[in-house]
Parts: sequence; structure tokens; C-alpha cells
Amino acid sequence: MLIVQKYGGTSVGTIERIKSVAERIKRNVDEGHSVVVVVSAMSGQTDGFIALAAEVTDTPDDREMDLMLSSGERVSAALTAMAIQSLGVKARSFTGRQVGIVTNMAHTRARIESVSADDLKTFLDEGYVAVVAGFQGVNEDMEVTTLGRGGSDLTAVAVAHAVGADVCEIYTDVDGVYTTDPNMVASARKLDKICYDEMLELASLGAKVLYSRSVEVAKNYNVPLVVRSSFNDNPGTLVVKEDDEMEKVAVSGVAYDRNQSKVTIHGVPDKPGLAAMLFQQVAEDNINVDMIVQNVSPDGKATDISFTVPNLESARALKVSEGFASEHGARDATLVEDIAKVSIVGVGMKSHSGVAAAMFKALAENKINIIMISTSEIKVSCVIDVKYTELAVRVLHDAFELEKEPSA
Amino acid sequence: MLIVQKYGGTSVGTIERIKSVAERIKRNVDEGHSVVVVVSAMSGQTDGFIALAAEVTDTPDDREMDLMLSSGERVSAALTAMAIQSLGVKARSFTGRQVGIVTNMAHTRARIESVSADDLKTFLDEGYVAVVAGFQGVNEDMEVTTLGRGGSDLTAVAVAHAVGADVCEIYTDVDGVYTTDPNMVASARKLDKICYDEMLELASLGAKVLYSRSVEVAKNYNVPLVVRSSFNDNPGTLVVKEDDEMEKVAVSGVAYDRNQSKVTIHGVPDKPGLAAMLFQQVAEDNINVDMIVQNVSPDGKATDISFTVPNLESARALKVSEGFASEHGARDATLVEDIAKVSIVGVGMKSHSGVAAAMFKALAENKINIIMISTSEIKVSCVIDVKYTELAVRVLHDAFELEKEPSA
Repeated sequence: MLIVQKYGGTSVGTIERIKSVAERIKRNVDEGHSVVVVVSAMSGQTDGFIALAAEVTDTPDDREMDLMLSSGERVSAALTAMAIQSLGVKARSFTGRQVGIVTNMAHTRARIESVSADDLKTFLDEGYVAVVAGFQGVNEDMEVTTLGRGGSDLTAVAVAHAVGADVCEIYTDVDGVYTTDPNMVASARKLDKICYDEMLELASLGAKVLYSRSVEVAKNYNVPLVVRSSFNDNPGTLVVKEDDEMEKVAVSGVAYDRNQSKVTIHGVPDKPGLAAMLFQQVAEDNINVDMIVQNVSPDGKATDISFTVPNLESARALKVSEGFASEHGARDATLVEDIAKVSIVGVGMKSHSGVAAAMFKALAENKINIIMISTSEIKVSCVIDVKYTELAVRVLHDAFELEKEPSA
Repeated sequence: MLIVQKYGGTSVGTIERIKSVAERIKRNVDEGHSVVVVVSAMSGQTDGFIALAAEVTDTPDDREMDLMLSSGERVSAALTAMAIQSLGVKARSFTGRQVGIVTNMAHTRARIESVSADDLKTFLDEGYVAVVAGFQGVNEDMEVTTLGRGGSDLTAVAVAHAVGADVCEIYTDVDGVYTTDPNMVASARKLDKICYDEMLELASLGAKVLYSRSVEVAKNYNVPLVVRSSFNDNPGTLVVKEDDEMEKVAVSGVAYDRNQSKVTIHGVPDKPGLAAMLFQQVAEDNINVDMIVQNVSPDGKATDISFTVPNLESARALKVSEGFASEHGARDATLVEDIAKVSIVGVGMKSHSGVAAAMFKALAENKINIIMISTSEIKVSCVIDVKYTELAVRVLHDAFELEKEPSA
């Protein structure tokens, strides 16, 4: 098999861990596999660079940041290659440029445009383990760019596609993807398999094992992912295209997100196009709106508009909303920060009816008031008071019997 | 003026110092100069990388070392560029590759083969300060290479030549080149000017302000160097081609080197070609022989051969010599480690007679026994007992009146 393995910052955080990564790779090579390794910077390194830049200036230049940030992965790639070599296995590091990862021009958050991997393939054919510095590429001016948070996952998936890997293993500090946060629900069960769309919903809902962008690319190119731990040999969770078996299960997991705030504009005059205007202003301010609810007023002359945003953007969202309120004759705008979003996710929902109703019922039976609701084909989300988050997650995990292995 | 300025690891060792470097550069730009900056890694960084590699393996791969080591200068270049930008001056970092520094294939000790600097010149013309990551280049396979110790000086000199700089300033933690070590002789005087050949002799004799390789390249391309401190505005020492004025002074400086050992092979049979054979074996073992003395034996049948080597190579030199002795019927080989070399250097020696004699006389008057002597056109060196080093340096500094400014 041709395997791409990505190791995060924690997995290469010390020389001891790098050596243990090298031993895992040697085992894979000894079993006859070809291996491409993608490494992140040693944990703490990237944040250290960001802190240094912050000491220099409040507004560090993105191009210079990229040159500095990309150094972290070069160091861990070199050390990992040395560690593999010291076990008697041929290995060779590759920078983003040397892999031929070409990105667009957006420094610090570049998008990969193409991956040639010609040299890398040549060395793979000659029996080398290729160790790729993650998180980086070059733009068409041959300037070093970086891919933003989760960038090394993206490197791994893109390289896996470019070399036609059989699987892309994402090594991290957890055993895989769980039915919900195991720290919150003791009976949370590790999933053996999950489909891209479910993983996307879980990732965007804050299950931090994988970033959405990497899952999207894996889905587009149909690259099978495995999320697993670098600290043990457990098999992890396979992320692949949905299949019939998956559809038999209505709900695969329960996710939650406590980093949400709700902005409400009260007494908005009931004029056509006003809501559109509001959300255009919000979008222009680069604020990510998640859910929107509009309550029709009893007299039909004014409405309340509520929407949720990430906590980090709530102050800006309130400011925009206050400006909008005074400009268009609405009463005022308020901010509620102590809310949370709980969600159930599962591709089986498409073919199972009554899933949303079962969720609402479970919450109601436990006196958890639902503030807002949004649904997609494979997800139902409810905004609730933040103090009920744990209760809601446990209740839903129980209600859908997620602790039980689905019958084959 | 077009100025290349090189800042060593101590000069960019903290964010505070990087900011002070940026302020100096801004002053130069405000005075109307074009500036290219070459930076070393922040002090401690390179040794930190070497220590990390040593934790991984006893025999780190040179190619991987270079990828790791070159990261240090990339980080300091990015931070320096940011610091300059934060003062409102346009600045831009360049890696070795981006400067077009092409080296030979020898990783960790590469030689520069060419410097194109095309992009760099374009940005200089547009009013940018170019900040170059020192110590690195790429070979013809586009692999990152490093230039060995003192490599950033070499980058500075090579870039100065490539862009046709008016001067190449080497910023360090001392005020310039002194008539001798100021820590040893209180009356040591900073030299205003010195010629390349004198600087070469002083550099190779252990005056650590500049590495020989950089001076050689500066001499070849006639690049004027200035050695000065990054911690004050003193003018430093100019290193240029020799001129008539310089030749008026017989001796410019006194140097010493305590890192020398003497190996003696006793009772070598007086056969032609034997000495040549010995030194070929020594050279094949990569041992750098400095001085050689052969004493003709009284009976003309056997001789003693002595040579000096750096302390670090003395054990290996003794081993080779012992092997040689037993193989060729010499009596034995011995090692003396407590020796030192003191030297007087000056281009004026070429036209002044009696300089060597004056040196021997000054040492003899102070009962300092001379063990070995070697001379070149512009240098006389004596090997003495290490315990007399300080005395010898002071005596010679006095004898040649180096504390006095030469009359114009």
C-alpha cells in the first residue's frame, strides 16, 4: 500500500516522540508499504513565532510571517527524516516547494492550486520514505506561503491525492472520531467509520480532530482518511464516501459548540428587503453568521431578527446591528453570550423520518428550552442556554442509543 | 551610497536588538543610502538546532542539517524585515534561493559559485531595504545548502560584490580590529584601516572578528569591508587594498593562538622522501599542519621532525605519527600541548628590514624561549611555552610601539 501519514505538533512535540514516530514508520516500511510522512511544527513552535512577531509589531507583514512560520515545519521534517534514517530506513525531507505545492497568492491562508510531487514520486519509487514539511507551499512568484490553521492536514490530503495514495492517515492525540465528546459523556463510542459529510458537519461544529477544509478536499478527490492516535496502535476512524450501511443509522454523533453568541435586533419595521440589507452589511464586515430566526410580530408592523455568530465576532456583530437599528428605525440591538448549540448528525436522517421530532422531545422532557433551530439534510441543531449544554449532549446521546454498536 | 550591512547573531539576539538594528538601518535610509541587510540566526539558535539533531542521531545527515540550520536565518530575516517595516521603511526578506546564491553540492560547508541578485536589485531600485537570510544558498538541484561557520559574512561579501556595493559593513560586538587583544593589553589601539592580507593573517591567527574565507572573497573582488560594533556609532576598522601609507608601518598588529599542539617524531631515519610521506598521511587524515621544523641530527643518520596542529586534531595527529614511527623505524612520537603561537603582522615588513630580528630580540630580553619560527612576507610567528603568551604579546606590542597612532 501507498500510505500518507500526517503527524500533528503534539505527535512530533519532542525528540522522543519524533523517534517513536520514526519507529512506527519503520514498522510500516518493514510490512512492505510505501510511506509519505507529513509533519506539523513541533508543538508550541508556531505560537512561539507568532509571539516573537507580536513583540516586533502589532501588524506583522503576512509575507514575512509566512517565511517565519514555514520554518517550524522544515525543522520538524529534517529531524523526522534524520530519526527515520537512524533506524536504517532511507528517508528524505521535502519542503512545500520541493513537493511542488503551488498555492494562490493569499499569504497566511493560501489555498493549494496544484501539487506536482514529481521528485517525491521518484524518491518513493527508489524506496525512500518522503518526509514533507506540512502547512506550506509556494505561490507563482516562488514566495513561501502557508495554509492557515489545519494546513498540515490539507498538505497530507493534497499529497495523498497527488501520489494516488491508498489511504491518508491523520495521526493526532485522540483515538479517532467519537459519537460525542468522551470528556462529557463516559459512554461515548469511537466510530469505526463515518462519511465525509458527517465528518464535515462534526468538524464545523467544533469536534477539533480535523479541519473542514481538509475533509472537503478529501471528499472532492475521494481520498480515504483515517483519524487515529500516534500514541497507540488502535485502528482509529475511517472517513470515506457514504455507503448503504451508514444510512441504516439515523444519528451518528452529537456535537456541541459553546463559542456562540446571539444578536437580536428588536422592533425592525416590516419592510421588504430590510433583512437582506442587514445581512449584507454583516457579511461585508467579515462576520460569519450561523443561524437566523425572524419572529413575526403580533401586529404585523415590526419583527425581531436574531442571529448567531462566533463569540470572537460578537462585539463587531453588535456594533453593525446597532448602526443598522438606528438607521432603519428599529428599537435596539442586544447581545446574548451565554448560549450553546447542540447538534445531531447522521447521513441516515435522509431516509429516517421523525429524527428532529425525537430530538425536540428528548430536550423538552428534560426541560431544556430551545431558543433557535436549524436543520440540514444530515443535521439538526438547537440553540439552548449554555448551562444546559452537558445535560443536552447526554440526553441526546442516550435518546439515540449512540453508546450501542449499530447492528451490522 | 549602496551599503551592505551584516549583523551577527549577537546583534539580532533579542527582539530589542533587532529593533535597534532596524533603527540604525532607518537612519541610513534617511541619509539617502540604499541598504542591503544580511542577518545571522539569533544567537543560540544554530547551536540549539545542532543539539536537537544530536539528540536524534550521532550522525545527522548533512542535507537534513542544512534544511534545519537554514531556518534560523529565515526567522531572523523575517523578524528584521518586520521591524524595519514597523518604522515606516519599505523592507522585504530574501532567502538564499531568492537572492540567487548558487553553491556547490557540499552540504554544511558549501562554497558560493554565483550570486545573481536580480530580484534583489529590482527591489532595491524600488526603494526597498533588502533583508537577506545569511549563511545559505541552493545547489544546482535546488537543495538548500549552508556555508559553514562565518557563512553570513560570506553571504554579505558575495552579495556586496553582486550588487556593486560601495562598502560591506560587518556589524559585530567589538568596535573593530585592534593592534592586539584589548583584554590582554590595555594600550591596544583600534586600527582605522588595515589591508586584506593583514586581516587574513590576523583572522587565521584567531582574531575572531572575521573569518578568513570572507576576507579572501572580499580581497578577490576588492570589496571594501568595515568591521564595527552594532552597539555604538564608532566608525570601526576599514579593510581595503594595501596602499603606500600602510607600508610605512612595519607592524600593524600582534596576534596569538593558544589552541596549538606540537607533535614530535624522534629519531626518524635520514632517508629521502620520508618527511613527504609523513605529511601526506597526515593530510589524508584531514589534519591541518601549521608549522614544521626538522632538526638535522648530529650524526646525520636520524632527525627529529616536529609540527604543530590545532589542539582538536592533536590526538589524531599523534596516532598517525606513532603509526608512522613504528612503520619506518623512528624511535617514538610525543605530543606537547602547552604551547602557543605569537605573531607580528604588517604589510610594511616587505620594505622594512630587521623586523624579525627585533621580534626575537624583544622575546630574548624577556627570557622567552622560542621553540619554532615561521615567516611569511607579512608575518613572523614564534611558538613559545604557553605560560609566556601574555608576556610575549605585551612585550611585542611595546617593542613595535603599537599603542601609538602612526604618523601620517
